[in-house]
Amino acid sequence: MKDLPLSKVYQLIEPGPVVLLTTARKGRADVMTMSWHMMVEFEPPLIACIVSNRNHSFAALRATKECVIAIPARILAAKVVKVGNSSGRNIDKFKAFGLTPAPAVRVKPPLVAECFANLECKVTDTRFVNAYGLFILEVLKAWIDPKQKNPKTIHHRGYGTFAVDGKTIKLKSKMR
Amino acid sequence: MKDLPLSKVYQLIEPGPVVLLTTARKGRADVMTMSWHMMVEFEPPLIACIVSNRNHSFAALRATKECVIAIPARILAAKVVKVGNSSGRNIDKFKAFGLTPAPAVRVKPPLVAECFANLECKVTDTRFVNAYGLFILEVLKAWIDPKQKNPKTIHHRGYGTFAVDGKTIKLKSKMR
Repeated sequence: MKDLPLSKVYQLIEPGPVVLLTTARKGRADVMTMSWHMMVEFEPPLIACIVSNRNHSFAALRATKECVIAIPARILAAKVVKVGNSSGRNIDKFKAFGLTPAPAVRVKPPLVAECFANLECKVTDTRFVNAYGLFILEVLKAWIDPKQKNPKTIHHRGYGTFAVDGKTIKLKSKMR
Repeated sequence: MKDLPLSKVYQLIEPGPVVLLTTARKGRADVMTMSWHMMVEFEPPLIACIVSNRNHSFAALRATKECVIAIPARILAAKVVKVGNSSGRNIDKFKAFGLTPAPAVRVKPPLVAECFANLECKVTDTRFVNAYGLFILEVLKAWIDPKQKNPKTIHHRGYGTFAVDGKTIKLKSKMR
């Protein structure tokens, strides 16, 4: 894993990929699948995400105010769905699905070694948690796996149907 | 355009496509390109989006509390970028780029006739507007164009680079 400049984080999140969210509490790590997230600010990178209080990760995220957003490529799709279909209440999802927790630098929740990007985050605003389960996260450190070239991400359309990235097009744009 | 049940709106937004946002104020419609948005609730469908106060649409959205989210397919990518590269301060973007405003039913801002889906929205929460430009929208009515079959959406990776939807995969999932 290599450092990714924080100014480039939005390029990973803005396209709307399915991500994994890891948390850690009382020495135990957990991971969930997440699709409801968006960029809020370029730099320092702020991300908003929705974590329902029906998710086992909710309590850990609210209590510890730390998480890692890990971005899986298409090859991990089957594991991503298994993570989404199960609850950390009952099992260690890392073990159960063959995902490798790797130590983060700025936060306690682990990176996911198989993912091509990992974002270490702290929760910076909880004012919308009660109303919507909406957390504002600041990305403190970002990692990219240089061995995964041009990873294709997956985008959830509901009920286990995903669009996989296809062609890339480049248009003349003033937009960042 | 045909009615789309509100329960299906999340299936359009969750994958993270680039969208157009229309507003209307003082009899004048405007349209901007937007990529920072996410689902907040299934039903009634709530969407969060970031509209910077540097965008010309910001003032109209805040004052009128109404907008339409229109979802363009890949064929509209060049127009979407032109909309993103220009400001409604100076031009009528509908005319300038050959987009057709069509009357909405529940709100004053227009639908975009060329888009395969249109969501009529009202702003329901502005408490995070000052801090982040974050608006909470409720979708009041949704439209789908049955003539556009399996539209491929575009996902912005920064600086005019877009991933176009490729293959669709279906995995056994308990996730909605």
